[in-house]
Amino acid sequence: MPHFERRAVPGDTHERAVCTQCGFVSYENPKVVVGSVVVHAGDVLMCRRAIEPRRGYWTLPAGYLELGETCEEGARREAAEEAGADIALDGLLALFSLSRIGQVQVIYRARFASGLPRFEAGVESLDVRLFGWESIPWDEIAFPSVHWSLNAWRRVGDGPLGVPSGNAAADPRGTRPLPGGEGL
Amino acid sequence: MPHFERRAVPGDTHERAVCTQCGFVSYENPKVVVGSVVVHAGDVLMCRRAIEPRRGYWTLPAGYLELGETCEEGARREAAEEAGADIALDGLLALFSLSRIGQVQVIYRARFASGLPRFEAGVESLDVRLFGWESIPWDEIAFPSVHWSLNAWRRVGDGPLGVPSGNAAADPRGTRPLPGGEGL
Repeated sequence: MPHFERRAVPGDTHERAVCTQCGFVSYENPKVVVGSVVVHAGDVLMCRRAIEPRRGYWTLPAGYLELGETCEEGARREAAEEAGADIALDGLLALFSLSRIGQVQVIYRARFASGLPRFEAGVESLDVRLFGWESIPWDEIAFPSVHWSLNAWRRVGDGPLGVPSGNAAADPRGTRPLPGGEGL
Repeated sequence: MPHFERRAVPGDTHERAVCTQCGFVSYENPKVVVGSVVVHAGDVLMCRRAIEPRRGYWTLPAGYLELGETCEEGARREAAEEAGADIALDGLLALFSLSRIGQVQVIYRARFASGLPRFEAGVESLDVRLFGWESIPWDEIAFPSVHWSLNAWRRVGDGPLGVPSGNAAADPRGTRPLPGGEGL
C-alpha cells in the first residue's frame, strides 16, 4: 500500500502528496468530466446509473476524459459506453467548476449522429431513456450538475449556442452536494 | 523510486499505471490549464518565461488548475503569480484540447481589476509587458495555444463574448508541436 504524506516539493508553490516509501509525487489536479445533453425531437437522453455513487439515479452520459482524447472525443465515447449511442456534437453548452470534488465539467449539446434515436444501456447503466422536459425524473437526479446541464439546455433549446453556461448562481464555486445525495 | 507498470485494473475500461512496489494506481487523466488574455486599452499582457519549457519565450499568464479552485479562481491566481496582476474576468474566450500532451485549456478574456495597468514579473517570468497587436513578438511565442488564444481575442475584440473558440482548424486534436519548439 502507498503511504502518502503532504510535503513541500522544491520549486513548487503547493504542498504535494509524496509517497514516503518510494518518493513518488502525486500531482493531484482537478479532473475533466465530459458529457452531453443529447436531444431528439425535444426529448433528452438520460441514463440510470448501475454503479455507485448514486446507483439507481438518473444522469447524463458523461465521464472522465482520458489521456489522448479531445473533450469532444471523450463526450462521444461516454455516450457510446453508457448509452450505446453514436452522437454528433452541436457545440459547447456549459462549463462547470466543482471545486469541492476537484472536477471541471465540459458539457456539449448533441444529437444522434444518424438522426435516429438508437441507444441501449451500457454496462454502467441500468436503463437509458428519452424524456420530455415534464417527464424527467426530477426527484431521482444523480448530481447537481445534471440539473444545471438540463437547465442550460432549457434556456438555449434548439437555438444557436452562445456563451456557455457556468455554475448555478446559488453555487458559484461548486461546493454544495445535492440534498440527500452522498456527495458528488 | 516508484516502479510503475501498465496493468489492467478490475472494473476499469483502461489500463492504468500501477506501482509494482506498493500497488498505488496512478490515474493519469488530462490536466486543466487556466489562463487569460488580459486586455488593456487594446494591448495584451504577456509574460516572458523564466522556466523551462520554452524559457525566454512569450506566453499568456496561465498554469495548472489546483484542487479546490474554480477555473475562474485559477486564472486569477496565475495572473497574480506570473504577472503580479489583479485581474477581473470578462468571460470564457476559448476552450482547447491538446490531446498530445493531455491538457484541456480554459482561456478567459480579462482586464485589470482596478482599471489601471499594474503588473510586474513574478518568479516564473523574466519580463511582463503590454503589447499592441502589431508589436507582439510573434517569432518568440512559447506555445501554439498562445497563438490560438491571441487569434480568438483578435476575432472577438472588446465585443460581446459568444461561442468560445475551439482548437485551430489546422490542429483539431491538439497533436502538433510548435515548429522549432521542444514540445508543448
